[in-house]
Amino acid sequence: MTFGARLRDALAAHGPLCVGIDPHEHLLSGWGLPVSASGAREFGLRTIDAAAGRVGVVKPQVSFFERFGSAGFSALEDVLAAARAAGLIVIADAKRGDIGTTMDGYAAAWLGDDSPLRADAVTVSPYLGPDALGATIRYAIERRRGVFVLAATSNPEAGVLQRAEPAGSGGTVAGYVAAVVQSERRLIEPDPSPASIGFVVGATVDRGALGLDDRTLLGAPILAPGFGAQGAEPADLRRLFGPLSEAVIASESRSILSAGPTNLAARIDERRALYATAVTHG
Amino acid sequence: MTFGARLRDALAAHGPLCVGIDPHEHLLSGWGLPVSASGAREFGLRTIDAAAGRVGVVKPQVSFFERFGSAGFSALEDVLAAARAAGLIVIADAKRGDIGTTMDGYAAAWLGDDSPLRADAVTVSPYLGPDALGATIRYAIERRRGVFVLAATSNPEAGVLQRAEPAGSGGTVAGYVAAVVQSERRLIEPDPSPASIGFVVGATVDRGALGLDDRTLLGAPILAPGFGAQGAEPADLRRLFGPLSEAVIASESRSILSAGPTNLAARIDERRALYATAVTHG
Repeated sequence: MTFGARLRDALAAHGPLCVGIDPHEHLLSGWGLPVSASGAREFGLRTIDAAAGRVGVVKPQVSFFERFGSAGFSALEDVLAAARAAGLIVIADAKRGDIGTTMDGYAAAWLGDDSPLRADAVTVSPYLGPDALGATIRYAIERRRGVFVLAATSNPEAGVLQRAEPAGSGGTVAGYVAAVVQSERRLIEPDPSPASIGFVVGATVDRGALGLDDRTLLGAPILAPGFGAQGAEPADLRRLFGPLSEAVIASESRSILSAGPTNLAARIDERRALYATAVTHG
Repeated sequence: MTFGARLRDALAAHGPLCVGIDPHEHLLSGWGLPVSASGAREFGLRTIDAAAGRVGVVKPQVSFFERFGSAGFSALEDVLAAARAAGLIVIADAKRGDIGTTMDGYAAAWLGDDSPLRADAVTVSPYLGPDALGATIRYAIERRRGVFVLAATSNPEAGVLQRAEPAGSGGTVAGYVAAVVQSERRLIEPDPSPASIGFVVGATVDRGALGLDDRTLLGAPILAPGFGAQGAEPADLRRLFGPLSEAVIASESRSILSAGPTNLAARIDERRALYATAVTHG
């Protein structure tokens, strides 16, 4: 099965909630864990335990492991292995972005069949041009894995750049990134249902104002940070995403992780129920 | 001493040449090394040995270590330690880019005093908005380290995005990134001579066409890939960079590394001499 098909099934079975794995210093302390690679490992493994069977997708934030160097990456490898063993779909939130053989190195790290860091999908950044991501898109699809390209993010600092207008296009950088990635993807995965290559689009982003046309995004999975502590609520999902709603992965981190290790599974159940209610009544 | 001052002295003493450390698969094989983390470690250590005393700056490409997972990061830590011991200035080419506490994690990884991955400077990517890099800029300067922000790159895929026009500005994304970063930097390092925060600007980029004004860049170090195998020649440096020339770090990888381990030191001497001649006659 393609990544897109596996993701669709996981969202249908478990709902849109994705549990972020963010072993931030404050959370590690709050959980009574050391601020170290071994603390991050324990934090990740407990989160996987609680998430398994409750949600379809988890999203480890690479930065919070990388800050502990190779020991942190070793911890992340253990967390990734546990997630695979639990049957969870894993999106490594790494936001890598480079060109040529350098970008190929990142693709091999996060999507290679034998890589200890392999995930089901990885987030990437298009500042060096979305066309430069073509080889990574191909690499992912050939291995039945996925890629999420940063398109429109909800942090206020991002607006000027992501709304800037490519010469003579009448559109925006975010819209240009989406259009180029969709056409690169169609070269390799011509008629996917659904696609294995998606986008990061903040839940609270005004897609229209950012020049992101829902017709361009349609068919692609949408990784949407911004639910939970960052402001968007499960009940808002259908209103916010309209025709894209079925493809939305609603990523929550603090709102879940702040429950602490003992109450984590119960908190995931609560949040998951909110999405289920919203879908039923939406 | 600030990073900017140390860099200025290193460039004055050794010239602009920076040796890239890119343990690409083909180069590892060409050097008779295994395509593995231990091969990458050996490759990096031999390059440091050859570079020490011949150039002031080295630039490990993180992707080529990351592709081997935590073992690759462990190899990179050894290479970074060897570079520090040799007195080389190290720019970790990681192109990280995120927001808030996630970006803080990357800053701690590459610029933290006790991090096993610490370098003198790190490259970062501004797709989430150059303002989102303010905390990293502050973190670096407070630790007498540096940051290079991707501004204008010479790969052809980058042009549309980096030349796009922020609404009503009359400028470009690349110019906007440079202006915001310079003003963020001046908040923390008011009158540096020279600055500790610089830019990645491809050697063969037409800065004017990309909306990058040399007056905006003046005072900032310029990390310039594109010399050597990628087309720009040492003799071109002054013509290409004009008033910015003194601040240019001319990064070469393949042109040097393809010499193989035995001839590496001699190749570095050759390339270095070309820059010295160009400066004398420029």
